[in-house]
Amino acid sequence: MNHLEHEAMADDDSPEADAFRDECGVFGIFGKSEAASLCTLGLHALQHRGQEAAGIVSYDGKQFYVERHAGLIGDTFTKTSVLERLPGSRAIGHTRYATTGGGGMRNVQPFYAEYEGGGFAIAHNGNLTNALTVQKALQKRGAIFSSTSDTETFLHLIAMSEGKDFLDRFIDALKQVEGAYSLVGLSEKKLIGARDPLGIRPLVLGDLDGSYILASETCALDIIGARYVRDIKAGEVVVITGKGIESHFPFAPVPTRFCIFEYVYFARPDSNLEGRNVYDVRKRIGEELALESPCDADIVVPVPDSGVPAAIGFAQASGIPFELGIIRNHYVGRTFIQPSQSIRHMGVKLKHNPNRKMIEGKRVVLVDDSIVRGTTSQKIVQLVRDAGAKEVHMRIASPPTMSPCFYGVDTPEKAKLLASRMSIEDMADFIKVDSLGFLTIDGLYRAVREPQRNGECPQFCDACFTGEYPTRLMDQEVDSKIRSLSLLASNG
Amino acid sequence: MNHLEHEAMADDDSPEADAFRDECGVFGIFGKSEAASLCTLGLHALQHRGQEAAGIVSYDGKQFYVERHAGLIGDTFTKTSVLERLPGSRAIGHTRYATTGGGGMRNVQPFYAEYEGGGFAIAHNGNLTNALTVQKALQKRGAIFSSTSDTETFLHLIAMSEGKDFLDRFIDALKQVEGAYSLVGLSEKKLIGARDPLGIRPLVLGDLDGSYILASETCALDIIGARYVRDIKAGEVVVITGKGIESHFPFAPVPTRFCIFEYVYFARPDSNLEGRNVYDVRKRIGEELALESPCDADIVVPVPDSGVPAAIGFAQASGIPFELGIIRNHYVGRTFIQPSQSIRHMGVKLKHNPNRKMIEGKRVVLVDDSIVRGTTSQKIVQLVRDAGAKEVHMRIASPPTMSPCFYGVDTPEKAKLLASRMSIEDMADFIKVDSLGFLTIDGLYRAVREPQRNGECPQFCDACFTGEYPTRLMDQEVDSKIRSLSLLASNG
Amino acid sequence: MNHLEHEAMADDDSPEADAFRDECGVFGIFGKSEAASLCTLGLHALQHRGQEAAGIVSYDGKQFYVERHAGLIGDTFTKTSVLERLPGSRAIGHTRYATTGGGGMRNVQPFYAEYEGGGFAIAHNGNLTNALTVQKALQKRGAIFSSTSDTETFLHLIAMSEGKDFLDRFIDALKQVEGAYSLVGLSEKKLIGARDPLGIRPLVLGDLDGSYILASETCALDIIGARYVRDIKAGEVVVITGKGIESHFPFAPVPTRFCIFEYVYFARPDSNLEGRNVYDVRKRIGEELALESPCDADIVVPVPDSGVPAAIGFAQASGIPFELGIIRNHYVGRTFIQPSQSIRHMGVKLKHNPNRKMIEGKRVVLVDDSIVRGTTSQKIVQLVRDAGAKEVHMRIASPPTMSPCFYGVDTPEKAKLLASRMSIEDMADFIKVDSLGFLTIDGLYRAVREPQRNGECPQFCDACFTGEYPTRLMDQEVDSKIRSLSLLASNG
Amino acid sequence: MNHLEHEAMADDDSPEADAFRDECGVFGIFGKSEAASLCTLGLHALQHRGQEAAGIVSYDGKQFYVERHAGLIGDTFTKTSVLERLPGSRAIGHTRYATTGGGGMRNVQPFYAEYEGGGFAIAHNGNLTNALTVQKALQKRGAIFSSTSDTETFLHLIAMSEGKDFLDRFIDALKQVEGAYSLVGLSEKKLIGARDPLGIRPLVLGDLDGSYILASETCALDIIGARYVRDIKAGEVVVITGKGIESHFPFAPVPTRFCIFEYVYFARPDSNLEGRNVYDVRKRIGEELALESPCDADIVVPVPDSGVPAAIGFAQASGIPFELGIIRNHYVGRTFIQPSQSIRHMGVKLKHNPNRKMIEGKRVVLVDDSIVRGTTSQKIVQLVRDAGAKEVHMRIASPPTMSPCFYGVDTPEKAKLLASRMSIEDMADFIKVDSLGFLTIDGLYRAVREPQRNGECPQFCDACFTGEYPTRLMDQEVDSKIRSLSLLASNG
Repeated sequence: MNHLEHEAMADDDSPEADAFRDECGVFGIFGKSEAASLCTLGLHALQHRGQEAAGIVSYDGKQFYVERHAGLIGDTFTKTSVLERLPGSRAIGHTRYATTGGGGMRNVQPFYAEYEGGGFAIAHNGNLTNALTVQKALQKRGAIFSSTSDTETFLHLIAMSEGKDFLDRFIDALKQVEGAYSLVGLSEKKLIGARDPLGIRPLVLGDLDGSYILASETCALDIIGARYVRDIKAGEVVVITGKGIESHFPFAPVPTRFCIFEYVYFARPDSNLEGRNVYDVRKRIGEELALESPCDADIVVPVPDSGVPAAIGFAQASGIPFELGIIRNHYVGRTFIQPSQSIRHMGVKLKHNPNRKMIEGKRVVLVDDSIVRGTTSQKIVQLVRDAGAKEVHMRIASPPTMSPCFYGVDTPEKAKLLASRMSIEDMADFIKVDSLGFLTIDGLYRAVREPQRNGECPQFCDACFTGEYPTRLMDQEVDSKIRSLSLLASNG
Repeated sequence: MNHLEHEAMADDDSPEADAFRDECGVFGIFGKSEAASLCTLGLHALQHRGQEAAGIVSYDGKQFYVERHAGLIGDTFTKTSVLERLPGSRAIGHTRYATTGGGGMRNVQPFYAEYEGGGFAIAHNGNLTNALTVQKALQKRGAIFSSTSDTETFLHLIAMSEGKDFLDRFIDALKQVEGAYSLVGLSEKKLIGARDPLGIRPLVLGDLDGSYILASETCALDIIGARYVRDIKAGEVVVITGKGIESHFPFAPVPTRFCIFEYVYFARPDSNLEGRNVYDVRKRIGEELALESPCDADIVVPVPDSGVPAAIGFAQASGIPFELGIIRNHYVGRTFIQPSQSIRHMGVKLKHNPNRKMIEGKRVVLVDDSIVRGTTSQKIVQLVRDAGAKEVHMRIASPPTMSPCFYGVDTPEKAKLLASRMSIEDMADFIKVDSLGFLTIDGLYRAVREPQRNGECPQFCDACFTGEYPTRLMDQEVDSKIRSLSLLASNG
Repeated sequence: MNHLEHEAMADDDSPEADAFRDECGVFGIFGKSEAASLCTLGLHALQHRGQEAAGIVSYDGKQFYVERHAGLIGDTFTKTSVLERLPGSRAIGHTRYATTGGGGMRNVQPFYAEYEGGGFAIAHNGNLTNALTVQKALQKRGAIFSSTSDTETFLHLIAMSEGKDFLDRFIDALKQVEGAYSLVGLSEKKLIGARDPLGIRPLVLGDLDGSYILASETCALDIIGARYVRDIKAGEVVVITGKGIESHFPFAPVPTRFCIFEYVYFARPDSNLEGRNVYDVRKRIGEELALESPCDADIVVPVPDSGVPAAIGFAQASGIPFELGIIRNHYVGRTFIQPSQSIRHMGVKLKHNPNRKMIEGKRVVLVDDSIVRGTTSQKIVQLVRDAGAKEVHMRIASPPTMSPCFYGVDTPEKAKLLASRMSIEDMADFIKVDSLGFLTIDGLYRAVREPQRNGECPQFCDACFTGEYPTRLMDQEVDSKIRSLSLLASNG
Repeated sequence: MNHLEHEAMADDDSPEADAFRDECGVFGIFGKSEAASLCTLGLHALQHRGQEAAGIVSYDGKQFYVERHAGLIGDTFTKTSVLERLPGSRAIGHTRYATTGGGGMRNVQPFYAEYEGGGFAIAHNGNLTNALTVQKALQKRGAIFSSTSDTETFLHLIAMSEGKDFLDRFIDALKQVEGAYSLVGLSEKKLIGARDPLGIRPLVLGDLDGSYILASETCALDIIGARYVRDIKAGEVVVITGKGIESHFPFAPVPTRFCIFEYVYFARPDSNLEGRNVYDVRKRIGEELALESPCDADIVVPVPDSGVPAAIGFAQASGIPFELGIIRNHYVGRTFIQPSQSIRHMGVKLKHNPNRKMIEGKRVVLVDDSIVRGTTSQKIVQLVRDAGAKEVHMRIASPPTMSPCFYGVDTPEKAKLLASRMSIEDMADFIKVDSLGFLTIDGLYRAVREPQRNGECPQFCDACFTGEYPTRLMDQEVDSKIRSLSLLASNG
């Protein structure tokens, strides 16, 4: 549903358009003074899940306070003046991709609303696959929408519920939505966390001196010195109040389907998700890849930064030396947003430079996490060839991505995914490598310590690789025109 | 309802706290290319009705575009980049006082929403006196509120109406609200303008090469070269489409009660409201004042800028020379917002300086538009005395303001209005003048060319002078605690 | 010398191009805590002398602190954070027109430099007529220049002087420059003020609780509650230290030639310059004008704001009623800097609107301060005619301006001054008025209480009216190509 | 000389204070259209040499254009509007650490000046060790200084020289200064590059389609697709004009002393300096370190990012697995500049997080590039211990840094360098590691492919390790009070 908005942001030729994006991060804390400061730190640790805007809502026992800003957390929320406008010992926060500018701020979370029972705020990571269908029904009942975000749908469901208290309403709302969600909610009395019945997106519980914390990843606990308690369970709703924590399981239990791509790319390597360390999984991915798709080469070179752990694993398993043959310039930041045409053409060179001395005359194995449209891979291979590589072999730390994600990741439509329209051989020709190898789906399952993919009932959501979506895709099934239902322009 | 918000902005000692504020301005145009540019010019001409934030919503036949910015129109909306984000030949706009910062932008109008029937936007000047009561009822039906503005209430009423089209719903909504309102609304098909049944706030209709325009004052027509057609009537709803204009009168007709204070202070002197020229009325006010409250003095000095026309009238009627004895520094703008303490103490001196050479040894008649808390008058009188005036006589171009306004003007509560707790003699002592004269209420009526105030059925809303409110004050009658119902902090 | 810079700022069609500009303001204070705050207030009062940039240099007994910012004083210098970076009890400041942006800041004063004897700062109002000639000579001696301001020339002269202390060097430097200057300088020990031998630009001395103050106009004394002591004399150098004040007169005395245009337009009406109150002079100008150039009309209407006092005088002398028939919108501020083309075309309408009800069917006398290129007058007359005036008569509160100023005022070149290429009759045709009258030069002298202009030795600098420049114009006499000597682009 | 300035920026407790800083980067290009765009790209590639401010001066055959901005190149120079203000086919640029704010911009390079012979601009990497002494002499001759940068000294030397043309004057100036410098200069006719006689700082020559380029490092050639030609030689002055390039060697040849710390830390790993690839040297440093200071451990963990190549080398030589056990958050950018106190305390945690799963129960070898004050090392060791490491061994990829640098690197004074006041054992205790090993000075020389350090005549400048400065330190020898000669406050 945010699709329109993002197409307005990145044209198809930009490096940003050739990547998976839009994985948001959420954070919540209850009962700790300077809650907003801790929330700011937590969001900073989750910055890799969304760099374009962030928001925090705090509550001081009397009132709610809302701050939402475009830009990096560290640039916008660390000022004393901003934090002073967020008093209280309870807060939730959100970091996301979003358009810049006044109007676009409407989509920046958390969303705050007042309903019959009082005020509350919601922050959401994921995507509801029946949001438009529900929205249409809600509008029939008189609801109005002012953003293009599916989170607003959830707010209305809470308000229109006939549940007797906020928790009842929250659960009532959950029962009406489908898709992937990890939610944190803040009402006058409670901090609530919830994951969808399949547990597609992550959410963990932490503890700081007796105060509970909810966060998308464990790295957000580490930065504030909080202790990891456990992952919120699939389909679980936790309610945190002054009296402690309680769990609710409003759904009939089903086998879980955690997003396997979190391990491949989204999550920070130092996070632990569902009992697995991300860096550790990535290294094992590299090891599996070296076994499945070996290569006679002189050096293993990661496409930085996301390809580094798999490249280390590949190197260790293959015995081929690991070398930082491509250097990444980290000073790009939020820069080059409106570059002059001549600079825009530089594309990938603004971020990556091959180290000719390491590469010249060598047979190089490039390790990258995935191929989306293939245009970035093409350019990086060309850079490496220009730097004098004798051979360039590409090894991809995941199976071919053939289907778009409808669970909170911004992917190009199917027709633009290179793997959906080419064989591996054709892809190798397209990106001009001497050989191209992807990890198999079973290799990926082995890397996460499963013996193999259970075809009957896959242990993870791997729809981007297999096209097997674990939920109904209601909004997709309905007339596709519904997707352009919003009359609000993306930059508005 | 915006009260909380404003108290956060201006502390009680600031000159801003000792004035009437919060008169918004609205503008709408249908069927003219570059509608947003014309809207920008119109709002610039209405800038005196609100300087802190503005917004424009345009529609290009396919989508709505929203821009809302803190700051002066000329600083925020004149950039090509902003106007390019507002395509289309239809637009409405709004200028207002508002808090600065991200969160506070939630209250900046126009409000945009999508309901069952499509998208629409509303801009509002006035105040609904039953907004909280209605809001409570709406929340019972599941509505959520995310601003502290009564305009959001109106949006919900439209969406929840069972009217068959937008106009039906709009009128249905109007019938549920009480108070003062001049509204402009933009739907996919229509530009709508409406005034409350008493016609408390102004709204005029103009024409530019066959395209209709709605604006709070005629000065907004002048700037774009539009022709004044007529004032929208009290209780009238005008609907402008590609086919022309049509009028609806959904309310039983009642005698009108236009805000008489618009003539005294709010409106721009070059505007014509309800058939009267504002400058002309102000001059006559000065003439009446000279007759009612004569004074043996050497010079007539206005407190600039609002006191100038009345002072000219006073001078012409009394034969005492008119002199610009106090010079106003117009470079204050949006400045001194966060001044250091030492500068903040300067208060009124940042804006006003008496011209000692004109004042020294003279008996001075100071003419000002009104007295609110009296603190500013006190300081100006002191400045004039320090400049060597032999005598200082104050003449006020309106009756004593004794009661707060609930119709869209931000006034201090009754207890803080100087005239509500002091006799004129005590007020003269308080502001330290040799004599103090207010215009009588009948004098004010004569200045607007009425023979006298009709006590049975006053021709204007003059509640701030008389305490006779022309509508029920539902929200005031209900438990006053309801006023703090919003859990959203003003700076949030 | 700043010419290049200004042509880059305002294109010839802008209203700004049709006005006199570039009168800077200076301020200095010695021995008062929070000197920078007081300096900020003083510069705010002098804001009419230059709105585009300002700077303050303070000294705390150990170090100098420099802040220079583009924008209004109240927007840039009132923040606590800025004032905290300007500690000390001594400060000088400057306000000016200047280009915006990084590079252009090089020309923002005060200038700070360190020479053999220590650090010092200089702020300058005026223009040196031999700056380029001196600059060339200094460069021969090895001096480097990094701005396009003549003030930098003065810095070098001080540094290269062989005077035994700062004062000696300062006076030595003064002796080498020609033209108009009112300077304030701050060294480690002294605050210095100086006026050129003819006293062309103003500079006054004030006293605040025993601390001395220097300022361009008395209104800057008023705002901080300082007492006016006297005007600095033509050719005088005052030296203020902890021990008090001392005067030096390094030049042979000559008859003074104060800029008469300060009375007509530049100075604030509440200031007193050389013993005359500006407002008072302007009113007398109006009276003289009414006598010299009477007019059978219904109302006297000033072009606001500068035409107001003369219009009051004209009305009082002629008995024709004074009316505010044109309303000025003061919210223009620093706005409309980069407006879209469609808004740019509005030109004068952004600022001025005639009040049709006052004007319609009337014979109007418009009173303005001067005519520069005539394009603005043309537009205002058209506005007044469009508002229905039966006749429009223009009366100008000064003689025709026929020659450019080389003493610190930014005027168009001679060929662009309307009066230099047209007779009064032709000018009347050009601006389309029924009659046009200028004040005579003797009328202007009478208004400043001189019996008449002394043709042998004029009492004022009136070169803009007479072309009789009171000093040599060295840089003009030298090959005119020297004017483009600076290789530094204006926007750099 | 910039010392004061930097102490104002970073307090001693900040992570920034515990690092070497202030290595600037320079770039120049002659005869290529859109020179400023190419310069922007080159500076972006050199961003690691200074992140706080940058400047570009271009020349279009008629005028010079100057833009200087605080912030990252990509944020400030990539806008079309900025690049349009820098026309021409010749440009030089500079990137540096600098204070933020208006005043501090005075120290941002390139510096531009006009002297007798015309305009010119200079950008400088390095530090003159006799700048204050020369400055004092120049001031005696009448020179004025308005920055605290030694580059201004160089400008004056050029202007005061009696050389017959710009090149003569440039060389004349070079002969009067001592210390380390790599300079690029742009006059109306020429692009000049120069290195000091010892060749302490780097400067390379490149070629892009026949146009010459000068840059601090080869990575700035790579980004624009330029060909590396050669390093500018120690003591060489190259002059690039439309006719080609010519070399001058104004100094008697002496053995060169390139800064060995460029290899250890400053330069980008993909750059080649003096014939050596930086990444390659760093890996060999790791190998030498593994041989000299072996360690019985389970994993080798770099302190990212600077420790990575040495850690790879250490791992390969020792056979201990290389693991990314500490994850770096790159979204810090220019953030956390004014953080609230509570966030400021987080210090190193804002950037680094250990990956507990990789570290828990392991014996860890941490590899870092150097130890400055030791406070950051202390914190990182603590993080690693808190993450459950069984043993923590620290290996430093350079010898102990015992002496400050006077050649363009901002180092703490000697007393604050941990190695200058503690034995290695005490340092190990201080940072709380189980063992601590530094590379020996001979090990470092072997890593750069020298058999060993030549004690008689060292092949490199290694003063930070040995205290043997290759030049006189004139300013240090003179009364140390001279260091505070500048009266201009750092924030001014």
